[in-house]
Amino acid sequence: MEYTFANRVAGLKPSAIREILKFTSQPGYIPFSAGNPAPDAFPVDDIARLSAKLFETHPIDALQYSITEGYGPLRTHLMSYMKEKHNVGRDFDDILITTGANQVMELTAKVLCNEGDTVICENPSFIGSLNAFRSYGVKLRGVEMEADGMDMNALEQALQEEKRARFIYTIPNFQNPTGVTMSYEKRRQLYALAKKYGVLILEDNPYGDTRFAGEDVPCIKSLDEDGLVIYCGSFSKVMAPGMRVGYAIAPGPVFSKLVVCKQVVDVHTNIWSQIVAHGFMTECDYDGHLKKNQALYGKKARYTMDLMDKHLAPYISYQPIEGGLFLWCRLPDGVDMNAFCKEAVNRKVATVPGSAFLMDENEPCQCFRINYSTPTDQQIAQGMEILGRLAAETCGR
Amino acid sequence: MEYTFANRVAGLKPSAIREILKFTSQPGYIPFSAGNPAPDAFPVDDIARLSAKLFETHPIDALQYSITEGYGPLRTHLMSYMKEKHNVGRDFDDILITTGANQVMELTAKVLCNEGDTVICENPSFIGSLNAFRSYGVKLRGVEMEADGMDMNALEQALQEEKRARFIYTIPNFQNPTGVTMSYEKRRQLYALAKKYGVLILEDNPYGDTRFAGEDVPCIKSLDEDGLVIYCGSFSKVMAPGMRVGYAIAPGPVFSKLVVCKQVVDVHTNIWSQIVAHGFMTECDYDGHLKKNQALYGKKARYTMDLMDKHLAPYISYQPIEGGLFLWCRLPDGVDMNAFCKEAVNRKVATVPGSAFLMDENEPCQCFRINYSTPTDQQIAQGMEILGRLAAETCGR
Repeated sequence: MEYTFANRVAGLKPSAIREILKFTSQPGYIPFSAGNPAPDAFPVDDIARLSAKLFETHPIDALQYSITEGYGPLRTHLMSYMKEKHNVGRDFDDILITTGANQVMELTAKVLCNEGDTVICENPSFIGSLNAFRSYGVKLRGVEMEADGMDMNALEQALQEEKRARFIYTIPNFQNPTGVTMSYEKRRQLYALAKKYGVLILEDNPYGDTRFAGEDVPCIKSLDEDGLVIYCGSFSKVMAPGMRVGYAIAPGPVFSKLVVCKQVVDVHTNIWSQIVAHGFMTECDYDGHLKKNQALYGKKARYTMDLMDKHLAPYISYQPIEGGLFLWCRLPDGVDMNAFCKEAVNRKVATVPGSAFLMDENEPCQCFRINYSTPTDQQIAQGMEILGRLAAETCGR
Repeated sequence: MEYTFANRVAGLKPSAIREILKFTSQPGYIPFSAGNPAPDAFPVDDIARLSAKLFETHPIDALQYSITEGYGPLRTHLMSYMKEKHNVGRDFDDILITTGANQVMELTAKVLCNEGDTVICENPSFIGSLNAFRSYGVKLRGVEMEADGMDMNALEQALQEEKRARFIYTIPNFQNPTGVTMSYEKRRQLYALAKKYGVLILEDNPYGDTRFAGEDVPCIKSLDEDGLVIYCGSFSKVMAPGMRVGYAIAPGPVFSKLVVCKQVVDVHTNIWSQIVAHGFMTECDYDGHLKKNQALYGKKARYTMDLMDKHLAPYISYQPIEGGLFLWCRLPDGVDMNAFCKEAVNRKVATVPGSAFLMDENEPCQCFRINYSTPTDQQIAQGMEILGRLAAETCGR
């Protein structure tokens, strides 16, 4: 049998990143290439207790079919929590619980984009979202990142040129992979530009609650008086990713289409995980847990950055982070980044070549991404020493 | 904001069925309209015990990110179980664990069909699958059902006429909504026709293991020497639907595309439910559980059919079933089926109008669907009396 596939997916391949990611899980490799939250941060005891209680008191609720929109008490609680804490959600908004946050990106592209339409993205950006958009045959238009978020002039130019732009995709807090947080000023500009050009904004915020230093910047969705913003949240970084619980807060008409499309994918999100997530938010010390996690991530990130300062300077530069899981490292001009990352793998240190996050993987790139939450402290120390020696050999000649 | 949507979903609306299904969950209504497995059939104690053990022994496995293909031990076990029990799966096949079985239909359409391509379906068929196909802008070509499965002449005619046919979708066992099981002879013909015309087959088998009478008919996938069949299985009817665990066994190249596309939807299926499903298959008496469930469903189905014979004859006819969850009821010609179902709802009995399952909801239809697994025995008795009186009033004049 000669298999042929739909145009939208014929060119979609497991990214080059997957080749390197394979090493992440192999023993003996230092997994700077991973993206896992720290397992120490999982509230294991609370989850075990909530789960046991659930099966004791109302097991059928956890095991029977449920509705597509999501577990009612979780939806209600999240809406009021997000309103109170982040001023997110207005009368015209509704909330959909999804099977992880990536489902929000996939459904948004499905619902909004015909093949050939454009999605405007930060360049570089999260490969899982980019591939979700690509899987609908859309054109990705990248907007370069600055230290405080997208280049707003480049964004306006993109909006002028891309007549079929449907939405702007942004990770405003501790962006993956750059670690950049968009300034409040740029958030306001971004919103104004979206309004001016009549395109929607998809605000993806998986890392906001990991902030361990500095001050929260208001969500773009908090500015949304016109129903322009689809907000995407996730429990993966603040509770546990294996549970696959995310959510979208979106204007009613968009919400309705997302629901219809989610229904044909998976009917509803695993209901055990929804009930446990609700219990964790309402019966446990959720804000205390966030604080504990922030301290844990802050300590580990500072430890990593100190070692980077010690071993990687002056060859490799990076922008210090105040949250999120990633550090974006830059090699000097003229150094072959891909060769550097390959040689690091030879020395049992796996990082992710930055080109994997570009709209076009073939563009030149001097950066690679490091994750500090998956490796142990000992692995981080070892890995930085190895990368430091490699940098000195490669860049110091 | 004036919202516009992608062509593929602009016309996709919550089906008329949803209007009636609303009554399913309202107290006071008899839920013949539902499609829930019987909660008595859920192995609650086993799930609770396996879940508790999991959080005691290796909680991080259940909570961390995992791989898209699915939980390794579950994949391995399912492959050997399906090979041994049903002769399903060959060297060229691989297995993907999905978030419920509907995800297999959605991903198959995404992977195989451009907009305007054709999917050939049994007419009537399961609305969740039909809407999954519709959500990719495909044309649905219906093939009429006979008592032993699709009309094979009509199928060949469809294959001749539909130059852009990509796959044939069938529920060969206890089809939803008709309850029909395709004969072995027709399965062989279907396979031969697919081979002759170079189209794939999507074999959806959620109900096969609910058989409570008669003999198993071999799966179409067991005939698959050419890599033509994507087999879809589900734990929803034999374990618990809220867990959302299904799977696809598909030829390697199709499997690979399904994996890439699943990755951008939800990364992987909830890992707790995958581990619990694996434990239930390997540590508990899985085949004993299936037998117990078959007895439970058989008893309830026979109870229901006896009451139908008593109350609904001679006005309403149906084809007796040997498994599955549904009975397909036919009103005499000339009776307005939609008006009948509406009046039944007025009398607090919810059924599903058969037109909801047609390729074109506006075609004439004399049938409606009844589910016997959700209502209690008492509700079934009451409901049949009410439907019987209504039939006598409506048809007996």
